[in-house]
Amino acid sequence: MATTTRRTPAGAAVLRREITAAIRDAVMHELAAVGYGRLSIEAVARRAGVGKTAIYRRWSNKLEMVLEIVTKVAGRKMPMPDTGTLRGDVEILLRILATALQHRLASQIIPDLLAEAARNPQIAETLHATLRGYSAELGTSLVGRAVERGELPPGTDPDTGVDVVLGPLYWRLAVARGPVDDAYLEHMADAVVAGLHASAASAVVPAVVPGAA
Amino acid sequence: MATTTRRTPAGAAVLRREITAAIRDAVMHELAAVGYGRLSIEAVARRAGVGKTAIYRRWSNKLEMVLEIVTKVAGRKMPMPDTGTLRGDVEILLRILATALQHRLASQIIPDLLAEAARNPQIAETLHATLRGYSAELGTSLVGRAVERGELPPGTDPDTGVDVVLGPLYWRLAVARGPVDDAYLEHMADAVVAGLHASAASAVVPAVVPGAA
Repeated sequence: MATTTRRTPAGAAVLRREITAAIRDAVMHELAAVGYGRLSIEAVARRAGVGKTAIYRRWSNKLEMVLEIVTKVAGRKMPMPDTGTLRGDVEILLRILATALQHRLASQIIPDLLAEAARNPQIAETLHATLRGYSAELGTSLVGRAVERGELPPGTDPDTGVDVVLGPLYWRLAVARGPVDDAYLEHMADAVVAGLHASAASAVVPAVVPGAA
Repeated sequence: MATTTRRTPAGAAVLRREITAAIRDAVMHELAAVGYGRLSIEAVARRAGVGKTAIYRRWSNKLEMVLEIVTKVAGRKMPMPDTGTLRGDVEILLRILATALQHRLASQIIPDLLAEAARNPQIAETLHATLRGYSAELGTSLVGRAVERGELPPGTDPDTGVDVVLGPLYWRLAVARGPVDDAYLEHMADAVVAGLHASAASAVVPAVVPGAA
């Protein structure tokens, strides 16, 4: 091993946490401000008030640094309160999501990395794995509880459920940028619960197209 | 007016259509390949096989060129076949969308411009107006027909309807990048129709939260 020919990092114990936190905040800020393509290690170091060495002691390059920080922040556990009913769980989840989708992580950083992902397979793989993991956790929790309560049939697909719950709000807040108020969230909760029931039923019983005869 | 002090464009009549088409194709290709931030007029001219003058005769800068071309391409009428039932209309629409969302316009160019929009108010305004116009047309057509047929109550909100129809598929194909097959589209069509009914009903009758007593 050639470890003696280069300066060896002194180990994780000496990577001071407050410096790591300052770098992480600086990376999130720079990503939101200029995007991945234009983000520079110099600007991150300047904003964090550290030397570039402090960054290269932690990550070997920009891609590694950004992916590790973003997946850690995105992967933080979302609160998923158990309200006792599917309708209640869906409504509180929509309210949490409506707030989360207006945070810079969802409104600027994820869209920017999704755009980069179209051109960078390593970003694509990491980002989509993170989003799928997040979706799977959310689906398993929401649908799993409803199945336990007898509100949805056993075998209901959590993945389709997540699309029904997350999709409309994501489209409205992150893509079309329409307004969201209390009345909207109420209607959407009703629509989502009905959609979950119908999707679960259609996966069990073959779908009948009304009026198709 | 100072029009005599600069070379005056000879008018729209002499802007040859095949050259405009070649430039438009080149812009779409470059946007997909390198994104808005790294797109250069030089590269567009080279790819289109024209001089930079041909571009500047049509648009005064990169932003104007990209916004006009993308909104024109995105604004092309989507086919919206009338199948005679809401369920049928929803299913065919989901199939058309599933194909459209895998086109480079939706999978690379729109995500890239959405990311730019977070930093450029002019892109944001144009892009969101285009997406909202597109959504409104789709909603009015789909929901309008269903109301005429008596399948949805008069006064059903087309905007919420669009979120319910477009959102789940957009989330799955453009964000989480999960698989979509025939069975998925069938379940989703059932979920969407149920969601549309529930959302329409909840907008008329005050929503009752089951088990909230």
